[in-house]
This record gives sequence, structure tokens and C-alpha cells, in this order.
Amino acid sequence: MENANGAPVPKATNDDDALAARAAALDAADPLAPLRERFLLPKGVVYLDGNSLGALPAAVPPVIEDVVHRQWGAGLIRSWNENAWWAAPVRVGDAVGGLIGAAPGQTVVGDSTSVQLFNALTAAARLRPNRPLLLTDPGHFPTDQYIADAVGRLLGMEVRRVPPADVAAVLAEAGDRVAATSYSPVDYRTGELYDMAAITDAAHRAGALAVWDLCHAAGALPIRVDELGVDLAVGCGYKFLSGGPGAPAFLYVARRHQADFDHALTGWNGHAEPFGLSGDYRPADGVERARIGTPPILSLLTLEAALTAFDGVDMAEVRAKSLSLTSFFLDCADAVLTELDFTTVTPRDPHRRGSQITLRHPDANALARALAARDVIVDMRAPDMLRFGVNALYVSHADVLAAARQLSEVVLASEHRQERFRTPTVVT
Amino acid sequence: MENANGAPVPKATNDDDALAARAAALDAADPLAPLRERFLLPKGVVYLDGNSLGALPAAVPPVIEDVVHRQWGAGLIRSWNENAWWAAPVRVGDAVGGLIGAAPGQTVVGDSTSVQLFNALTAAARLRPNRPLLLTDPGHFPTDQYIADAVGRLLGMEVRRVPPADVAAVLAEAGDRVAATSYSPVDYRTGELYDMAAITDAAHRAGALAVWDLCHAAGALPIRVDELGVDLAVGCGYKFLSGGPGAPAFLYVARRHQADFDHALTGWNGHAEPFGLSGDYRPADGVERARIGTPPILSLLTLEAALTAFDGVDMAEVRAKSLSLTSFFLDCADAVLTELDFTTVTPRDPHRRGSQITLRHPDANALARALAARDVIVDMRAPDMLRFGVNALYVSHADVLAAARQLSEVVLASEHRQERFRTPTVVT
Repeated sequence: MENANGAPVPKATNDDDALAARAAALDAADPLAPLRERFLLPKGVVYLDGNSLGALPAAVPPVIEDVVHRQWGAGLIRSWNENAWWAAPVRVGDAVGGLIGAAPGQTVVGDSTSVQLFNALTAAARLRPNRPLLLTDPGHFPTDQYIADAVGRLLGMEVRRVPPADVAAVLAEAGDRVAATSYSPVDYRTGELYDMAAITDAAHRAGALAVWDLCHAAGALPIRVDELGVDLAVGCGYKFLSGGPGAPAFLYVARRHQADFDHALTGWNGHAEPFGLSGDYRPADGVERARIGTPPILSLLTLEAALTAFDGVDMAEVRAKSLSLTSFFLDCADAVLTELDFTTVTPRDPHRRGSQITLRHPDANALARALAARDVIVDMRAPDMLRFGVNALYVSHADVLAAARQLSEVVLASEHRQERFRTPTVVT
Repeated sequence: MENANGAPVPKATNDDDALAARAAALDAADPLAPLRERFLLPKGVVYLDGNSLGALPAAVPPVIEDVVHRQWGAGLIRSWNENAWWAAPVRVGDAVGGLIGAAPGQTVVGDSTSVQLFNALTAAARLRPNRPLLLTDPGHFPTDQYIADAVGRLLGMEVRRVPPADVAAVLAEAGDRVAATSYSPVDYRTGELYDMAAITDAAHRAGALAVWDLCHAAGALPIRVDELGVDLAVGCGYKFLSGGPGAPAFLYVARRHQADFDHALTGWNGHAEPFGLSGDYRPADGVERARIGTPPILSLLTLEAALTAFDGVDMAEVRAKSLSLTSFFLDCADAVLTELDFTTVTPRDPHRRGSQITLRHPDANALARALAARDVIVDMRAPDMLRFGVNALYVSHADVLAAARQLSEVVLASEHRQERFRTPTVVT
């Protein structure tokens, strides 16, 4: 058998058989395997992009149907009371809070991560006045850097980009000038896991606030914001929380900061008496004050339904399975992807690994597209990183083996060099 | 026949018959009457609260079904390209633009009105540096006042509250210190229509920018932002646009300001190369730069579907019918609500009236609740205003007559004094 370029396509080896047997054994012993039934995954698709957009939870369609027809269509404006739309931002916030170690009453859902981070950083700076520095990660997701710069510009602060490994040293030296640190526990490109506790502690020792972006952590691994003393945190609803495309983001405001949480986006939903119609803003008590404008109810209630996929799920088990999946993927990559120009950038130490494996390859974009044509869905991040995200609620060891094997086949057959995979897509 | 308090309940009079005949004649001659079929209104409900939450358009449920199952469920991450999610904010923006007189490429949809206004006012102030004043309406919807104050605080500007009637005079006197004016063409409480052209002109004569909040105008009456030379405008998607609860808001940035539109919420969706992953923000060309974070796609595509209810509809006809409805409602109120302690606050001059009638009554809250129990849905605004909003796409003259009659019956029977209507609701 030959591929289009005349190169031989390898047959399965004994190694492959051994990997398949291991995958089968691991999946058979997986206590979370039944959770896959909570998602409506298309047949035949290997989905390793739940770190960009989570799969559709089975609980969502009936809820959306109810929200559209009964609540909006029949209930009309009355549903703000009768179907408790008004309470949704904090109610759904508490549901998210349960997954990040936040006791109730500290998390609110709405808006995008960018907007929530803007509010968080502005409030953090105001909680630490006369400290002119914000520290953020030069490898942080772009919007986090842009928003930090935007806040710095508005408040006359310097935004200093310090890699996570150096932040404790910078805080030890210049910490009394630092208002807040803004980091993510998981590097979105490499999947590296940073030490949230250490950075949070270092910030606190310097008298600064620790702000965390949990986009790549919430729903993927146990997070303990209360226990670590995190000050403020944000995250999106559409990755490991599977809340749907552009699902609203969340903001965690530790209870001890709520009375002094002095944010920039003082929308009417956060007013102490939103229907009192006063012309002056008086913030609500508690985390309610972090509400901004009217939230997108359809997207918000979709996220709420999606979160029921976590009902009864122990995040420690999610983490254990996630590590089993990524460890197994590394083994698969070692077996079938060596000598094919791939470099693993995700740490092999499980304590330093989030819920994804990233491989570098010069043809990453075309490879992702060629894999997609085989119904293996991964994503890439410029310029050369292929990301394989695993959501332990619905990804199996068989999935990650299939992904590694098909990637090997694509490369060996030079499939990705076909013209149709070379035109860059708008969204990669 | 007596009511619970022993008072006589009046029978229909000849006046009532005449009103019913007029309603029937007006509805029979209404060229827009067939549009009601484009909405899934519950049977027997008189809905005069489309100025708070528009009714469910019939086009929405099949679109939502498709978005959830085919686009999200089956398409997964690929739908950002293949189902053009990425292009939705500007595509839906252009659809809104068509209803407010904006040529394509100037309107973007996403986030809430509060967030969009924050961006608009910040950018307006930066377009007119060294002008320390923002003018806004002391009767403006609260969030508009709060956000103006928030921007003023961040940028070190004074926010001066000037009634619409006085704004031209203030601009003539202190206009060279004014960066921008922030007003609404329709008073959300009273339904009074202000002169957008005159205020816009006055702002421009002073060298200031005119920012408009079109929440109560878009979809309700013809708006001509391009023709009037409006600089920036915002508005929500869930009132007369019927985009669903908390539907995303829109922001209009006149083309001439786009290259210098320097906003505060610099999220990654607005970057010139959003997938280039640069750590520095470089704004996209055109209105794309006003995009912030990832928008709530389910809510956004619901709004897009909802806007098809306007397909082929002439906004001049919408306006004519809206005025016919509100004029007729005033006649009905004169006939059946006089001497029942109601005061009409909406101007009787049709040129000074938006798409609602507001009546003051000391028991407004209880009356709204008692009407709701009769399936006549209106809303109230503290402390004493009953609002009757008419959406010309689905409200009939028979509806407004029914509302006036039932309100009269409620008052005459003192129905609203029942205990069950006296407990205030969370959302009124």
C-alpha cells in the first residue's frame, strides 16, 4: 500500500497492539467512563479540543427548549421573577464555585473573560492603592495581557511581564510596589501547570493581591480558591465547563474583599436597588455588586444546564483520569510519533501538567486540518503548536491512541501537504 | 353585579362599543397586521411589555435547534469557521445597522449595553482630549448614568447631568469643555421622544461627540444614525428587536471615527490578528476593533434569527402603526380611565412620543401585578409609572383597548388591593 506520494504506509506493529490493549484496559477500569453518556458527541469523532469548546452536554437541549418556549415564549417578562432569571448570575456562579473550591456567594457569571478580568484588575488595583505595578505573564493568553495593559493605562500603572518562574523573586524584591499579580495556573499553549499556591503566597507576602485566570483549569482539575486564599479569579464557561460557544465567564471575589470591591463596570444589575432607578450607583452587598448589565440568559442557562454534567463527580477523579489520559498520550506519542519531527513541550512530570498535551511541529496548522478531515479534532496555536486537550468527562484512552495513530498516518502519508489543508482558516 | 368590596362593576357603555368598533377598523386596515404571525405569542395574552422583553419570534426556535445540535453538537469547534460564528458580531451588527440607519461595517454586537456604553464613552472622551466634561441626562436610564460616572472617574472628567431640553444651551455656553453628550432619544420612563437631530447638531457645533443610547428606539421607530451624523451609539437587543432575554447589545461606531476609536476594553477578539497571539494589542481595522471577548454565540444567533422578523418591513410603517396604537391608547385612557386617579405623562403630541404610553398611578406596582393576573402584561417603573409599550410588529389596537378596559375594571373592582398583588416582586 502506498500513499499519494508513493511512500509506504506502515502497518500496525506489535507496539500498536500493546497500546490498544492498554487503552482498552485503562478504559475498562475507568470509573468516569459512564460520564461520556452525559455528552452528545457525534459518532466516530475523536474530540480533543474540549479545551477550546466543550462538547454538547445531553442536559442542554431540553433546557434550551424549555427556556425558549415556556420561559421566554409563554412566560415573557414574568420569567425574570417566575423562572428566576434575575437570580441566575449568582446561582450559576455558585455552581461554578463548587468546581473551583469557592463557597457560595463569591462567584458571579456573565459577560466575557476579558470583561470580567477588566473588572477584577481594576478592583484589585483600587484595593491596593499607591502600588503602581501589575505583574502578568508574558506567556499569558493575549487578552489577559491586553486587558492588563488597558487597566494599567487607565489607572496610570506599569504592567510588568514576568514569567511565572520569576514572579516570586520579583515580588520578594519589588513587592511593595506591586498591587496585583495576574496569572493562569495552566499555560494555554504548552499545558504547563504552574504552582498556584506558591504564586498566591508570594503575592500575599508582598501585600499584593493574587488574581487568577482559570479558563484552562476550571472543570479540568481541582482548584481550591478559598483554601489558597486567592483574591480574585476569572474564567470562561465554554472550555472544560462545556457551557457552549461563548458561554458567559465567571468572576470570583473572595468574601473578604466584597465590601471594598470597587470595580469599573458599574452596571445597573450590580446596584443595591436595581429597580429603585436611582441616578447614583450604590453597590449591592456581596458578590451581587460584581454583576454588570443584563446577562445573556439563553447562554447563561445553557451553561447552568451544562454544569449538571459534573453532578456527583469528584474533581480528584477527574484529575486522576486527566493525568492518565495525558500520560498515555505521551506514551503513544513516544511510540508512534518519534522521528516524525514532533517535539513534546508539555512537561512529563504530571505535577507540572494541566489537561492537555502540546506537540510542536512545523506543519501544525496543516496537520490539525488534515486530522479534522479524519474526524480527529484538535487545535493549534501559532506558530507551531498542536494542542490535544482531554476532558476526562468524555475522552477515553482509545481516543487519545486514535489521535496519535492518525496523526502518525497523516504525517507518514504526507496527507497534510494536500492543497486543501494548506489554506489557513480564519479561526485555528 | 358587584365586586368583592360591594362596589358596582360598570357594564359596557356606548363609548366602549365605539372604541371596539374603532379598534376593529384600525386593525382591519393595518398593513402590518400579518407580521403578528412572525411571533409566537401565547394565546389570550395582551403583551404590552415588548419594550422590556420582546416576544419570541417564530424564526428563533428552529435556529436555536440548529445551533445547538448541528452547529455545536456535531460541528463542535469547527463551527467557528464552518458556521461563521467568528463573523457573527459584525454580521448581526450589520443587520441591526439596517434598522438604525447605519450602513454596513459600523455596528458590532456583543456584551451588554452597559459594557458597550463604557467602551463608547471612553473612546469618545479619548477622541476629544482635554475636554473635561461629559453631559448626560439626569433622567437617563440608571446604568447610563452609572457608566458615565465610572468613565468620568477613570478619566478624571466631570459628569454633568443636564436635561435634554437644556443641553443645547449648556453646549452653547460651555461646549468647548464638553467631550461628549450621552442621551437617549426616548425617555424610558415617560416615553417622551427627544430631538436626536437637534442634540446631535448642538454637540457638533460645540466640537463634542454625540453618543446615543438607542435601547428604546431601535426597532421601534426610524433612526438615521448615518444621516444625522451620530458619532457613537449603543442599544440592547432584547426590547423592540426581540432578541431574547439579555440578548447582546450593539455598538455603532461611525466610519469616520473607526481608525481613532481607542476604547478601554481591548479584548482579543478586536485584535488585528486575533490568532497571531501577540502579547501587544494592535486593533483591527474597522468596527471589528470594537469586539471585546468571545461573544455568547447562542444568544447572539438567537438575536440574528429574531431580526428576520423585520425582513421587508418599512420602519416608517412601523412608526405610523406605533403612533396609531399609542394615540388610540390615549383615546381609550381618556374614555375609560379618567377619574380613576391616572395621570398621562407621555406627550400627546405624536412628534414627542416614542413607542409607549406611561400613566402615573399611586398603586402602579399592584396594578401591574393585578393586570398580569388577567394576562395583560405591562410593566412599571418606580415609584408610580405604569408603562404600556407597543411593538407595532405584534400589538393590535384590540390589545391596547383590552389593556385600558381591564385596567379600568381592576381599579373599579379594587382588584389590585388584594393581598397577593401587594408583595413587591424582585423584578418589576
